[in-house]
Order: sequence, then structure tokens, then C-alpha cells
Amino acid sequence: MSVTELAQRARVAARTLATATRAVKDDALIAMADALVTRTDEIVRANGLDVAAAREQGTSESIIDRLALTPARLVAIADGLRQMAALADPVGEVVRGSTLPNGLQLRQVRVPFGVVGIIYEARPNVTADAAGLTLKSGNAVLLRGSSSAANSNAAIVEVLREAIAKTGLPADAVQLVDPSSRETVRDLMRARGLVDVLIPRGGAGLIRSVVEDSTVPVIETGVGNCHIYVDDTADLDMALSILLNAKTSRPSVCNAAESLLVHSAVAGEFLPVALAAFRNAGVTVHGTPDVAVLDEAVVPATEEDFATEYLALEISVAVVDSLDEAIEHITRYGTGHSEAIVTGSLAAANEFTARVDAAAVLVNASTRFVDGGEFGFGAEIGISTQKLHARGPMGLPELTSTKYVVTGAGHTR
Amino acid sequence: MSVTELAQRARVAARTLATATRAVKDDALIAMADALVTRTDEIVRANGLDVAAAREQGTSESIIDRLALTPARLVAIADGLRQMAALADPVGEVVRGSTLPNGLQLRQVRVPFGVVGIIYEARPNVTADAAGLTLKSGNAVLLRGSSSAANSNAAIVEVLREAIAKTGLPADAVQLVDPSSRETVRDLMRARGLVDVLIPRGGAGLIRSVVEDSTVPVIETGVGNCHIYVDDTADLDMALSILLNAKTSRPSVCNAAESLLVHSAVAGEFLPVALAAFRNAGVTVHGTPDVAVLDEAVVPATEEDFATEYLALEISVAVVDSLDEAIEHITRYGTGHSEAIVTGSLAAANEFTARVDAAAVLVNASTRFVDGGEFGFGAEIGISTQKLHARGPMGLPELTSTKYVVTGAGHTR
Repeated sequence: MSVTELAQRARVAARTLATATRAVKDDALIAMADALVTRTDEIVRANGLDVAAAREQGTSESIIDRLALTPARLVAIADGLRQMAALADPVGEVVRGSTLPNGLQLRQVRVPFGVVGIIYEARPNVTADAAGLTLKSGNAVLLRGSSSAANSNAAIVEVLREAIAKTGLPADAVQLVDPSSRETVRDLMRARGLVDVLIPRGGAGLIRSVVEDSTVPVIETGVGNCHIYVDDTADLDMALSILLNAKTSRPSVCNAAESLLVHSAVAGEFLPVALAAFRNAGVTVHGTPDVAVLDEAVVPATEEDFATEYLALEISVAVVDSLDEAIEHITRYGTGHSEAIVTGSLAAANEFTARVDAAAVLVNASTRFVDGGEFGFGAEIGISTQKLHARGPMGLPELTSTKYVVTGAGHTR
Repeated sequence: MSVTELAQRARVAARTLATATRAVKDDALIAMADALVTRTDEIVRANGLDVAAAREQGTSESIIDRLALTPARLVAIADGLRQMAALADPVGEVVRGSTLPNGLQLRQVRVPFGVVGIIYEARPNVTADAAGLTLKSGNAVLLRGSSSAANSNAAIVEVLREAIAKTGLPADAVQLVDPSSRETVRDLMRARGLVDVLIPRGGAGLIRSVVEDSTVPVIETGVGNCHIYVDDTADLDMALSILLNAKTSRPSVCNAAESLLVHSAVAGEFLPVALAAFRNAGVTVHGTPDVAVLDEAVVPATEEDFATEYLALEISVAVVDSLDEAIEHITRYGTGHSEAIVTGSLAAANEFTARVDAAAVLVNASTRFVDGGEFGFGAEIGISTQKLHARGPMGLPELTSTKYVVTGAGHTR
């Protein structure tokens, strides 16, 4: 089926979903979870085809690990759907309301977007997560996954659609877009009027291309060139612990630290300790000359290093002479994701949080906390790095729009 | 100066504006208002050049009326700026906040977008309004007005910039983009990373072209093919009064009604009265055959009529057999702006407001109320008909984004 046909079916399904009660949607989520577990065998079998094909093509084991589904992983995915059922329904929430001076009653109410398109890369768990989140928020979803996960996604979506249909909601709440052709991505990006919002999830290249070419409104997610700034008043033990956590606890994710800035007043004391810790942890350091003199393992940092999201055990390091200089550096190289200061100074904390322009600014805490789960949202469709609509971790409310409901008694103007 | 240079200056100004206190911003708004009044002569003189040029080109008097500035109109524009000073500052508002189970303090705080671009047509009052609203919300603005108002806009912006600079804020808070070339619109649309959001204000053609070609996120405003649906349980006197108000009180605006749907059970009673009232008010009716038989003045309605935003004393009229059919019609032809039902039935009201997908749905009230001023927002930058970020009348909060501020005590994950 063409993307246009899929989108038209999604629009029809969306009308039913928009007025479905939370009870009905939660029943569907539970049914989806149960079906994923019950039909584990066929999903794992389909996934086996993708894994075998990936292996044949010489795909790296780390990517194959992301692609592979096991019974235990399907249980975890199903648990995720059950947790969504326990979350509050964003639809119907009254965001703002008042009675106007003329007696008109005004309410701004959350409503679903309608049809959400998600373009993503190899992880098949995103298929079920995205289907669950969009269904809970009353939206129909068009899933355009990676061709390398084609069999896995087809099996998962088939199982989910059957489960949804059994609860009385339209199966077209969840549809898969043909992953074998680049044209379908293009068609999604041009489906203005049929698709209400596109969310690309994946590498920087994918996101950039969607953001630049889409006529459908896009929520940009992801790229995080996150900094840890160690101020001259920082508790240096705290700084080291936050730095190591932010860099090494999970280097492949967008909220991991990619760059360290140290105030010159404490650089002499802090940097040797930090560089030794990095060496122990297997982190390659790209440093300016004043950093490089401290440790022969330091690689000279280029301009490009400071602009790089390594997503690996690598970090760029620079010494700055002031808070101002740190903020200037972050303004220049940061991607507006998550930026942290370690400081004992209230004034520095306030200055940093006020002036640094990012989705999240942190004081004396690791950037790794910038996450929908950690923020208590219960689920996350991604982390927005744009300023329009949603910024930072996106939970269920971020998958909705609003509508004004105005009630009068024959009011004219 | 090129759009890129202007945008870079705007970014620098935006950093100061982002942390300016409400008191400072309000001082600037008052100074702007005072200067517009004090320097009325030079603005009116500059405007005279635009008006003379428009007249020479045979521009219609109604458009010249929109273009013309008089001392009284400048006083009204200045009063608008003073009213903005009286509004609450959206910046710094804590939208959401909690202490997480691990003790991290989480706050979601409103922050300015940064740099806002506004592309608009002939009305020079928009220049001062948009400058005031963006400044109050802590944003720098790039104003790309019409070449037909070039002299007027240049004079107004010159006056505003001087007033702003005297209060200590950067004059580059407000900058004019060269209106003489189409290239500058294109440059604004391609200034991703420098301009945070674009708001086109004007005709459907302008808005469509910006929405389709911009890589900068856009807030779509305006087109309103608004319906009045008269249900079988409607108070027909109320229906007539709402209908006439919505169609005739100001036909040129986006919240005016463009289409009437009447339930067949009351069509026989209501339509003759409505058609007579339309005739009296000079409204041309485009009707389906069952409407046309009632009055020889009725013009046969084409499919295109039902999709047309007349913005004039014209209306399309159709008879429907049910609420369902009315909702189907609105779903097909509506532009998602403002849709009204006149009904005595609570069930019909609930069904209509739940199922009609529009920025505003009204029960027993004229569509003309869908307006930032009427909604009590104090000011309005436009009416969004998109679902992302803002939907319906946009006041000051809609000119902001948010930022998460996370405060810990050495928290690691």
C-alpha cells in the first residue's frame, strides 16, 4: 500500500482513537503486551531472519545486539506496554480554563495530534514502544523502521494489530510503512495534511535529512554534544564522580557527556585526577595544549573535536578562565541538549542555568538524568532538541495538541 | 545587511533579552509607545510615500486603508504597546516542577525562543505589534514586511530601535529585513540554526509557500473556512443572530463564518428566514439545489465553494440530514480554524466538540470570539491552525519555549 493510502487509513482510525476512553486504550495496551509474550516464537523466528541477514552482511556485533530479540527482551517490551497502561491519559486534560467577562466558558483541552509518523533505525523494540505511546495518547501511527529489521517489525506489527482489533479499536491505529524503499521516507515527509507530525529517531544524518526536507511538521530529537563544566568553586570529588558517570555509564546515548570544561583556577588540581580516571576507564581524551602537557595519552583536540558527539569512550577537554568563557564555549559548540555545571556557588549556578540555552541545564548532577524515565514521565518517545512544541524528554502530553472549547448561550460579538 | 548578518546580530541581542527582567522590558515597551506618539510626524510622512505609491499603482482603497497611518492610529498602536507592558511576563514561569524520588529538583521553566522571524503583508501596525510582543516575551525579532509598506516600516522600526536602545536593551532586538527582494524571504526560511521560529501572517499563498519551503520551524496561521451548523434542536432566533454576527460583523477576518450547514428537520423553517436576512445584509449565498429553490438570489454552489474562504459578504449553504453528516462535511472542507454548533441538545454539543478537529469549537457562540483579545490573552501574534506547539489564538506564552532546570547535590545515575 502506498504511504498516501496508509495515511488515509490512519486518519480514519485516528477519529475513533481520538474519542476512545482511557479504559479502552488501556485494554488494548494490555492485549498488545499479552500478545507479544504469547506469540514470542513467531516474533523471535522472524527476528532470526533479520539477524542472519545482518550477520551475512558483516554487521557489527553491537548493532546485531540492538537488533536481536529474545523471549526475555519481549517480556521487557511487553512490560513497557503494561507500564503505559498505568500512566494517566493526557487526552482530555484541561490545560487552561476560565469564564470570560461576557460569560463565555473557555477551556483549552488536550487532544491527540491525529496521525504521527515515526522514522527510526534498527531497534525493533521502538516498534512496540512507539505503537504503545501513540495509542495511549489517542494517535494513529505510521511506523517506518529500518529495512534491516523488516521481518521483526512486520511480525511485531502483525501481532499488535490483531491484539488491538480484538479490543474493538481499529487495527489501523498501528501501520507499518514499507522499509525497503527510500521513497517511502520521502512520501511521509511530503504527506502534509495527512500526517500531523513526524518524529525521526536515530542518527544525526537521518534527523537532519528529515528536518530539512519535510513539509510535515517535525519534532527534532537527539543529537547531544553535552558538556560538564567544573567551576572554580566545585567540590572536586563530586565533579569527578559526575564526570565519570556522565561519560562512562552509557557512552552510546545522547545524554552522555562529550566534553569537559575546567576552570583554570582548579585545572591544576582537577585535571591530573580526571585524566588518570579517564585512562583507567579507557576513555580517550582530546585536549587543548594545556591539557595535553599533563598526560602523554592526551590526543591534541581539533576544532572539530569540540563539535563532535562521540557516542563512545572519547571526550574533548578544554580549560576556561571564567564562567563566561565556559558559557561562550557551550553556546558555540553545544547542541542544546543537556549541559551541566558542578559548582559550590549559588551565583554561578543561577548564571549558568539562566544563560545556557539547552533543553536541560543541570547543577551538580550528571547529564545522564535527562531522560523521560528519570524525570518521572513513565515513558519517553524521544528527547527533543528543538524549541517548538516540546523541548527535552517527551512523554505522553508531548504527543498531544490542544483544542479550545468555547461554550456560550447565544453569544455574539 | 544580509539576512544572515541580521540574524547573527539578533542572536546576540537575544542573549541579553533572554535574561532581561520584566521591569526593563516594560520600560522599553512604554518608551516605544511614547516614541511612536512623539515622532508621529515623521512616521506619517514616511507612510505618505507608501500611500502615494500605492495610489499611483491603482491599489484598491480598502488596501490603502489598511496601509494608511494617521496620528489617531499611531496613538492606538502605542496604546497596544502600553497594554503589553501591563501583561504578565511569560518568561520564568514554572510550567511543571517536582522533586524526584532521588531528591533531584526538577523545574520546567518558560524561556524565550531566541530569534523569531515574522513575514507579513501590508499592514504597518503589525510592525509595532510584533516588535512589542516579541520583546515582551524576551525574543529578538526579524521583521520582513511588504515592500508596499517599506517606508512606513523603516520609519517605525527606526523609532522603536532608538527607544529600545535608550532603555539599555539592545536596539537589535528589533530589525527590519529588506522587503524589496523575494530573496530575503527565502533567506529567512533557510536560516535554520539562526532563526528559531518563523511566523507568516497574511494571505493563504504566502503562508503555504513558507510552510512548504522553510527549514526553520514554522507556526502556520490563519486560513479559516469556518462553519456554523444549525442543529435540529437549535433555538432558531439564536442561530440567526449567531449566523449574522459570524458572517457579517467583519467578513474580512479569519474567524468569520464562510459556510452554513442546516439540519434538514429545521431547514424549512430556518432557511427562508436566514436567506432573507442575508439578502438584507448584502450577503451572496452559494447554495445546493435544495437551498436554491427557496430564493432566486441563491447562486448554485460548486464543490469549490464549500472549500472557499470568501473573506467577503458571501457564504456557502448546505442542508444536512444529521449531526454526523455535518461533522463529515466539516472534516472534509474545514481548515481546522473555528467551527460552531447551535443546538439545544447537550449530547449534540458534546459530540460536536469532541469530534470536530479544529483549533476552536464553539457551542451557541459566534466564531468571531476566537481571538486572543476576546480570550483574555491581552494581545495576539496570530491564530495558529497547526497542531504543533500552539493551536488557536497565540498570546505571549506561545512565543516561548521551555527549559528543564535540574538541581542536584552530586547526583549520579
